[in-house]
Amino acid sequence: MKRSRFAPTHPADLPAIDGLRIATCQAGVKYQNRRDLMLMAFDPGTSVAGVFTKSKTAGAPVEWCRARLPAGSARALVVNSGNSNAFTGAKGRQTVSETANAASQAIGCEPSQVFIASTGVIGQPFEAGVITRQLPGLAKSATGAGWAEAAAAIMTTDTYAKMATRTAKIGGVDVTLNGIAKGSGMIAPDMATMLCFIATDAPVSSAVLQQWLQPAADRSFNAISVDGDTSTSDTLLLFATQAAAKRGAPLITTADNPCSSSFQEALEDLTFDLAMQVIKDGEGLSKFVTLQISGAESMQAARRIGLAIANSPLVKTAFAGNDPNWGRLVMAIGKSGEAADRDKIAIRFGDIQVAKDGGVAPGYTEAAGAAYFQRPEITLSIDVGVGTAGANVYSCDLTADYVSINADYRS
Amino acid sequence: MKRSRFAPTHPADLPAIDGLRIATCQAGVKYQNRRDLMLMAFDPGTSVAGVFTKSKTAGAPVEWCRARLPAGSARALVVNSGNSNAFTGAKGRQTVSETANAASQAIGCEPSQVFIASTGVIGQPFEAGVITRQLPGLAKSATGAGWAEAAAAIMTTDTYAKMATRTAKIGGVDVTLNGIAKGSGMIAPDMATMLCFIATDAPVSSAVLQQWLQPAADRSFNAISVDGDTSTSDTLLLFATQAAAKRGAPLITTADNPCSSSFQEALEDLTFDLAMQVIKDGEGLSKFVTLQISGAESMQAARRIGLAIANSPLVKTAFAGNDPNWGRLVMAIGKSGEAADRDKIAIRFGDIQVAKDGGVAPGYTEAAGAAYFQRPEITLSIDVGVGTAGANVYSCDLTADYVSINADYRS
Repeated sequence: MKRSRFAPTHPADLPAIDGLRIATCQAGVKYQNRRDLMLMAFDPGTSVAGVFTKSKTAGAPVEWCRARLPAGSARALVVNSGNSNAFTGAKGRQTVSETANAASQAIGCEPSQVFIASTGVIGQPFEAGVITRQLPGLAKSATGAGWAEAAAAIMTTDTYAKMATRTAKIGGVDVTLNGIAKGSGMIAPDMATMLCFIATDAPVSSAVLQQWLQPAADRSFNAISVDGDTSTSDTLLLFATQAAAKRGAPLITTADNPCSSSFQEALEDLTFDLAMQVIKDGEGLSKFVTLQISGAESMQAARRIGLAIANSPLVKTAFAGNDPNWGRLVMAIGKSGEAADRDKIAIRFGDIQVAKDGGVAPGYTEAAGAAYFQRPEITLSIDVGVGTAGANVYSCDLTADYVSINADYRS
Repeated sequence: MKRSRFAPTHPADLPAIDGLRIATCQAGVKYQNRRDLMLMAFDPGTSVAGVFTKSKTAGAPVEWCRARLPAGSARALVVNSGNSNAFTGAKGRQTVSETANAASQAIGCEPSQVFIASTGVIGQPFEAGVITRQLPGLAKSATGAGWAEAAAAIMTTDTYAKMATRTAKIGGVDVTLNGIAKGSGMIAPDMATMLCFIATDAPVSSAVLQQWLQPAADRSFNAISVDGDTSTSDTLLLFATQAAAKRGAPLITTADNPCSSSFQEALEDLTFDLAMQVIKDGEGLSKFVTLQISGAESMQAARRIGLAIANSPLVKTAFAGNDPNWGRLVMAIGKSGEAADRDKIAIRFGDIQVAKDGGVAPGYTEAAGAAYFQRPEITLSIDVGVGTAGANVYSCDLTADYVSINADYRS
């Protein structure tokens, strides 16, 4: 697998976070000779929030996490790559339950405090033993270091590990946020899966974390699209060990606490960073595209218009061909179903005015558009002429490599 | 452009239909040395029904036809290829209006009885003159023959002309239905456009035609998808010259008239035939796929599940790679948003049971699935386990040729 042209030259170096320990190993779920299992152990009192796939065929680990989330208490996170344990029926539920039991014994907590995520092949039940027999050893060897190994262990065919870290202040006290993610990079061998795990030492209640996590997800992971397909396993979890309280940080129990603005900003910034790392590792991509939608009826409408463009095969193949084909943008706006005034639509490629008042702009030349489209990173601004709301969506092109990766992988 | 492997070896031979005349010419809208303009002239009393794109950025010709449809009276149809006259603002409306005026003078009718469709490049206004100066000559030279030339004149980069004919009986009297279509074959050079024109000598009122046309469209053109993109120009028009009344066919003014069952059947059969010709000329396709969805909550839900599968890049690339990747089918079912019981989903490839009760079926082998997927035409049956409704959706694969056609055309 060719490494993405957008892979970071200097991967982020994630510091230890008080109140959590990490361990990884080669369990051999499917891959050989690489790490594929990660245990994160949290101190008592750790709060948790989560956002999950909206798929109606979500995998067993997603169902497990969703049911455990309302209690808001986490002591362990177990993640494996190589098998998504999705579409595995009763056997899948049993594997999850056995994994939770084993982790709870290894850590010394309730099974309901164990969160689980799996990524990889779909529809192939697997024995919990391959995971559970590793957990006592992982629990013993876990340390504050190991974030890079954790980011690597959750990869399937991502071409680079995705990591980010931020610091913030709560009541004058420094707190840290670390995040790792895996992308819809490859889909090995069955489907795109987005996983993201964030941890912080900030003392924030689970209810407040949840209120902050959903909008952060909307502006980051829910604003990117490689191919419009939705995984059965998408999982975003945010853990807060509360350890910074020992250093004097005040406990945050309301979402509008003024002490929390720095933390909220850092959380939004971190999730956005990780989401950009995910999209920039999109399968077979050669171009990164920012879509700035404005003039829409609502932010939701703007995002749907942006996603209609981002997911259109005709638009994405035009990107791949460096073709400034703005007619296809108009087509995609039209198919979004959201309000747009055809005769007021305006389009810019970077600073180049391409269309305005529903037609090609005076002075626009195909040559100028084509020159701009040669760039590996392009920004398209589109005003749909009916309102004042906007949203950004981030996308990539659809290349022959995408087809080759997905058509030829198993055959 | 390579001719589709599914091109008919014996194109249908369309007979003349009483009450209409056809003429075509090389107007040079964009293409050189090929027919690109078609005039169909109808006798007084011809009724009309239509179904149009749901795009919010529909082209000027679509807006014109939609506004004229309620009057239900047609005397002419003017269709050009090479320019879709879409996203052309006030100039586009003027071109349509001048075309209607010129046709009405050439035929001797009201401008409001002229229907217009355009397909081709988007966002490039063009002078009506290139069309209007041809209309008097076309009106004079029009004859009952010429259906094959008409089917060719509306093509953009379709790799074959799409034609079908059927006969039916109304009150014991033979009537004929002819139809021509152009597909989302290529999109030259800007976007997929589906056009279909059907004419019959049956004496049926426009209100009744409309009641029959929508469900026929739902089971044919609205059940196919090449790439999930929606044209700004999609137009389906059905004209009835009433000429068979002179041969004794009773006038049909209610949709449930028992004399009409043979006609309705023929109409459904004809639209389905043309829709299959369109999908089998999908851009770059190598495989034709029938999706039989059952066990859904409603027919609409079944169709949406089918289209979610048909439009999924991951599913379509698996088809391209002859990969019996049923995990991606489960993913696409999940992302449709429609109700499905993950633990009751059943999947068959042809006669091969692949999955049941939410997991891989006992005895299913990857080798059996892979052998079936070698076929150029495959049928997948999927029961989503929540209800009794079903629908069929027809699709094709997403190949490197599709990307190459759409990425490289203008660059």
